[in-house]
Parts: sequence; C-alpha cells; structure tokens
Amino acid sequence: MMRLGIAVLLLSSFCCAQSPDGFQPASTNVWGAEYPRIDASGRAEFRVKAPDATTVKLNFWSNPKMDMVKQSDGFWTATTPPLVPGLHYYTLVIDGVEVSDPSSHAFFGGGKDASAIEIPEAGSTYYLPQDVPHGAVREIWYLSKVTGTWRHAVVYTPPSYDNQPRERYPVLYLQHGGGEDETGWIKQGNANFILDNLIAAKTSKPMMIVMAYGYAKRAGHPLPDLTGKPFGSPDMMKAMQEMSAAFEDDLTQALIPYVDANFRTIADRDHRAMAGLSMGGMQTFQVTFDHLDLFSYIGGFSGAGGMSMMRGDQKFDRKTAFNGALADPAAFAKRVHLLWIGVGTDEPAMMHAGIIKLHDSLTDAQIKHIFYESPGTSHEWQTWRRDLKDFAPRLFQTAGH
Amino acid sequence: MMRLGIAVLLLSSFCCAQSPDGFQPASTNVWGAEYPRIDASGRAEFRVKAPDATTVKLNFWSNPKMDMVKQSDGFWTATTPPLVPGLHYYTLVIDGVEVSDPSSHAFFGGGKDASAIEIPEAGSTYYLPQDVPHGAVREIWYLSKVTGTWRHAVVYTPPSYDNQPRERYPVLYLQHGGGEDETGWIKQGNANFILDNLIAAKTSKPMMIVMAYGYAKRAGHPLPDLTGKPFGSPDMMKAMQEMSAAFEDDLTQALIPYVDANFRTIADRDHRAMAGLSMGGMQTFQVTFDHLDLFSYIGGFSGAGGMSMMRGDQKFDRKTAFNGALADPAAFAKRVHLLWIGVGTDEPAMMHAGIIKLHDSLTDAQIKHIFYESPGTSHEWQTWRRDLKDFAPRLFQTAGH
Repeated sequence: MMRLGIAVLLLSSFCCAQSPDGFQPASTNVWGAEYPRIDASGRAEFRVKAPDATTVKLNFWSNPKMDMVKQSDGFWTATTPPLVPGLHYYTLVIDGVEVSDPSSHAFFGGGKDASAIEIPEAGSTYYLPQDVPHGAVREIWYLSKVTGTWRHAVVYTPPSYDNQPRERYPVLYLQHGGGEDETGWIKQGNANFILDNLIAAKTSKPMMIVMAYGYAKRAGHPLPDLTGKPFGSPDMMKAMQEMSAAFEDDLTQALIPYVDANFRTIADRDHRAMAGLSMGGMQTFQVTFDHLDLFSYIGGFSGAGGMSMMRGDQKFDRKTAFNGALADPAAFAKRVHLLWIGVGTDEPAMMHAGIIKLHDSLTDAQIKHIFYESPGTSHEWQTWRRDLKDFAPRLFQTAGH
Repeated sequence: MMRLGIAVLLLSSFCCAQSPDGFQPASTNVWGAEYPRIDASGRAEFRVKAPDATTVKLNFWSNPKMDMVKQSDGFWTATTPPLVPGLHYYTLVIDGVEVSDPSSHAFFGGGKDASAIEIPEAGSTYYLPQDVPHGAVREIWYLSKVTGTWRHAVVYTPPSYDNQPRERYPVLYLQHGGGEDETGWIKQGNANFILDNLIAAKTSKPMMIVMAYGYAKRAGHPLPDLTGKPFGSPDMMKAMQEMSAAFEDDLTQALIPYVDANFRTIADRDHRAMAGLSMGGMQTFQVTFDHLDLFSYIGGFSGAGGMSMMRGDQKFDRKTAFNGALADPAAFAKRVHLLWIGVGTDEPAMMHAGIIKLHDSLTDAQIKHIFYESPGTSHEWQTWRRDLKDFAPRLFQTAGH
C-alpha cells in the first residue's frame, strides 16, 4: 500500500488541469482521476479501460443507457449531450455486469455504492462550501431496543453549537430516499453547506439536522418469506408495512430520545420538524401524522402522502385522510406550522402527477400548505437541494419561538 | 427511486439468516446482500451475476488472485481458504476490468472506493461497538491557505467532550495510508470504537483524534510534468518531496491552528501526538521531527523513518538522522515522550525488514522506543487496529499532565 500510495500521489500530479477542448475532471472524481470530465455546457465524457470487454454501456439512472465506444488503446469512451445541473447517479455495464466507475467517488444509492457525477449549476453557490461559519457533521451510534442493533445516524450541528454551550436548538429530522442511506443528505445533498449558507445569511434559524437510516427490522421478528410473491401482493404490502412501522418506532422511541438526551435540543413539538425525499417523504407523512405530539413541521420532497396518494388515482377524503388530522382546516393550520410538498417539473409523469394531485386535494380541502416545483429537474438531488433551500427558512419562525 | 427503495426494502427481508452450511452474510455487505458470506473458520464465499462475462477473478490485495467459476444460473462463485481476521480489501476483475463488488460497502483504498470484507476475530471486541459511552465522529471543512482549497478532515471527540464544556483535551493526529483517505481510520480502522472502549476501561486518557487528508498540492504551484519519467527518477522524487512538504505545511499551518481554534484542545506539544500507517507513518516521521516544538508523541504503524529507512539497506547515523534529534539519547528521551514503531509479522518481507532495521538501529543508538509486532497479520487494517490499541494507552500519561 505504501508504494501504491506513492503511485497515487504521483498520478495526482498529472491531474486536474483543464484540457485544450474545454473539458475538466468532475468534482466527484477520486483524487487523480482525469475522467469523467465535463465542459461548460454540461457535457460529460466518460472513459474506462476494458481491452477485453465485448460491450460497455453507460447507465445514467435518469436517462437512457448509452453505448460506449472502444478505442484502439483499449479504452471505451462516451460523451453525453449537455446534462441538467446537479448530481447524477450512474453505473457502467461491462459485458452485462452493472458496476461502479473506479474513477468516481461512491455515493450510496440504488442499494449500493454507486457512482455519480456533479454537473455545476451556473451562478448557484447555495449548496457549495463558502467562506462562512461551518457547522459540524457528526456520526452517532445508538443501541436501538426496537431493532436490537447498533444503528448509525448523521447529525448536523449549526456553527454556533460548539461556541455557545448554553444555547439549545430546534431539530429537523431529514430522510434519504429508497435505496439510499443516512449518508445521502450530506454526501449527495450537501445539506450541511445549504444550512451553513442559509444560517450565515440569517435566512434560516440555526437548527440541528438528524439523518436516520431509513430501514429497520424489528428485533426477534421474523419477516415473512416472500419468495414467489408478486410485487404489490398482500404479503408484500404487509411486509412493507411491518418495516415501515419498525422504522417509525425506532425513530420515535430510540433515536429521538437519544438525540434529546445527548444534544442540546429544544425537545418539544414546536421545535421539531421532519422531511424526507421520495420514500423518506412517505415515511415523513406516516411518522408525523401518527405523532403530531412530536412534530409540527412536515415536508415531503418528491414523495408525500403515502402509497395511495402516490398512485395519483384518487383524491383523499378530508375527514378520514391522515388520521383525520385535516378534518378541521383551521385547527390543522394552528397545530401544524408548516405542511410543505414539492416535486421537480421533469420527474417521471406518475410521480409528478401524484404530487400535483396531493397539492390539488389539499387546496380543495382548504388545507394551508406550500407547494414548490423545481424547474427542469427530475427525481434527482438537485430537486431535493432546492427543496431544502426553500423548506429550511420556513422552519421554527413561528412567533413565540 | 421510490420503487427501487421498496424493492431494496423487500430484498432485505430475505437476508441475513445463517444458511444451512454455516455461512452468513459479511458485516461489510450492503443492506440486503446475501453475498459475500463467511463461515466460522473465516472462509469467504463470493458471488456475482455475470452471465455474459468470459472471465471473472477475485482479487484480494494481500493474496493471489482467484478464478471465479461460472455456474449454470449465470452467477460466478469462489470460496477462499480460511482468511486471517480483519478487514481485507478486494476487487472483482470482470473480463479484465477491475471493479468493486456491488454487494460490498465501499472503503476508500488504492485510490478508489474499493470493496472490503470483514473477517471477525474470535474473542476480540476491542474494535467493535460496545455498550459504553460513545464519542462523536465529526466531519470538518477548513479553508487552507497552503493548498488554496477547502479541505475535509474527520475528528473524533471523546464521550465526555459534549457533557463537560469546560474540559480541554489532548489531540492525536492520525494518518491513513497511501491510496486511502481521511475516512479510513473510522470506516476501515474503527478508531472511534477502539478509543471508546479504551477510554471506558480507563486504559486511555480521553483524547481527540484528528484525521487529515494526506494529499496536498500547493496553491498556484504547478507540478512538474512527469510523463515518461521512470519510477524513482530524480524528477519524480522531487515531485514527491514537494507534495510531502505541502501536506506538512497544510497540517501545521492550516489544520492544527483550525483545530485549536475550534475545539477545546490543550494546544501544546505535551498534549499533541501524531501517528500514521504506511505512507502516513512516513509522513508522521517527517512532520514530527521537523516540528518537535509541536509534537511529543510519535507513532509509525508499518511505515516509519522515511524512504531510505524503508528500503532496509542501511542503518542511520545517529548524529545526523532525523534532523539530529537523536544525537543525544537522554535529551531525546526527555523531549519525546513516546517513539513507537510497529509492523505485522506477515507483512511483505521488505516492509517487515525495513521496520526491523529501524528498530535495531534505534536500539543500537540507545534511543528509547517501543517496538510492537502484530502476530500473523499483514499490511492490512487488523495490524493497524492492534497498533492503535497498543499505542493510544501510552499517550498523555506522562507525569504532570
């Protein structure tokens, strides 16, 4: 490893200059990797050495697969059209096997450490490190009686947290999407930099963010054998409900008490928010509406309202939906300080329609809420960074806080 | 991603039971992955689906490559002989392309997000999470005038740090190896759990650990073009020295002042240690002997004493070696509270011989030091976990602290 290290150090010295054709290495590359590289228009060029491979494809999750082309030197290359700004997950498919690109840092998505490429957004610095006071990002481990395991979570404390030891802070619980994990909001989302910048501009109140691991299996609780059961079958739905309930119990019975015992939080519902993206948005709606004694701010980013809402095939019944919490709009508006939903204009049609339907249903039912559409972005992190930028300043601003 | 998430959740329900043949999923797997799996003897079984591939190899960095065997269902499999306990980096080589295993979590090593498998060590819990008070692991970002960039570092604060806001702590600067990065000592090394357990047992003093990114390029300083220059050429050596010097300046002029300004450290040489593994050990020797005004505890884990020492072809001249710091052994022993070197018995012969030679040279020169050999382990993380377990309790124990 020592010699390898030296080689890595040396490789790095060749790196990172802009090439004559205007391409330069992506910020998401590992140290020393020349490719993938991008130009000012957002085109991305990929390269992998695979002299013995028969086919190599580039698999952007939000775009069609592209065939890479073999060059005479054994490298396969592909150049994309201009990509939308933001972080795009991708993989390589080498002779039919989907793998990560060794040149990219890993970002946990799709249930694995996938590759991703960051396309800068011209003029946008809100999610980048700036010369402002920075909060800390901490890893914590807590022993959960619900799951019977040690669980890992990530916590952001605002810049003033360490210097003002008598100050207490409100908390936003912020969940990743399906196939992602508790590292996503920092590594992919830059949630810490977004909050640093909002707090420095006095646009957001100083707050903590807690990012939990969104999967849970109840201790000693055998899950049903789903072999051969079709997607959406009653057995599968039951298994999903059990996992969701285990997560809900872990969050409310293990993680929140741990955070309130170990950090200087303001431990009441007026100072506790929850939001999440995609699957995390659906978890947010489940957890918060089951526990309005614990939460008073609710956000669904490209995911909200539960499975039936997402299907987009029905409006809800105001009297019974969400545990009946919406039956009296005036009482709801008093109790829940913020109900926020958002979606990207370019998300898959069914997803987009589902959120629009929820927005329309809430409007029809005269339920006070915020609806935000991210222009030109899909079911990807740039949407959720913008969501957080709009959502966070609305938190903990209610008079009397 | 939402549907993907649901699928991931469901896959997880099939997972993690012990199979009838005594194999069970490795702890380093991603959620839901059945393979790789290990048995009680330390054998590991790998599996990857690659129906169209011609060859698939399993590449353990510390062992010969193994051919995987294609099964009728399109999966390729391989089972290793019993492996030494510890964390082993590996990759898959699919039709000649070295890639990570999608079933394994990523661990940054070899200049990329590689795969790794954890083989438990029977009866050893010192590096595992136990039901003791846990310290926090924090990510920090600092703007370095040396490199002209934002740099990321990882900081461990001991369990009492948050609850005793007037307490100040000594600091161990702890470096990763070549090809690894600042995340290695937590993700691969479990340094936080090792210290949690040592501190709970009152074997170690409560201390902070700061883990820096070990590569640096000086701001505005163009590096020489090394194209075509052979390994070890004067130009290459010069480039390496420049990078080492940039790291040394970044650590001493940017990171240490940042840490002392932003954490409750005891900011003097008696309460500051540095250690590192492999390349990080060599960096430690360079930095500490250049800055004995800053450090009084020094550790080299499978890497110490600089390039010439590692070659093992010469003993040093006590009068001139290490900036002359060893010329007077009594004065050195008074000034440097601990000089610690270690190596695994099964490391590559040249590496092992180099450290033995340094140990012999120090002994001949009557330089007080600790020498530790990790039995049966190679140039891998189990060696360095054991090193830290032996090293940390010796820190900050000098009378008067």
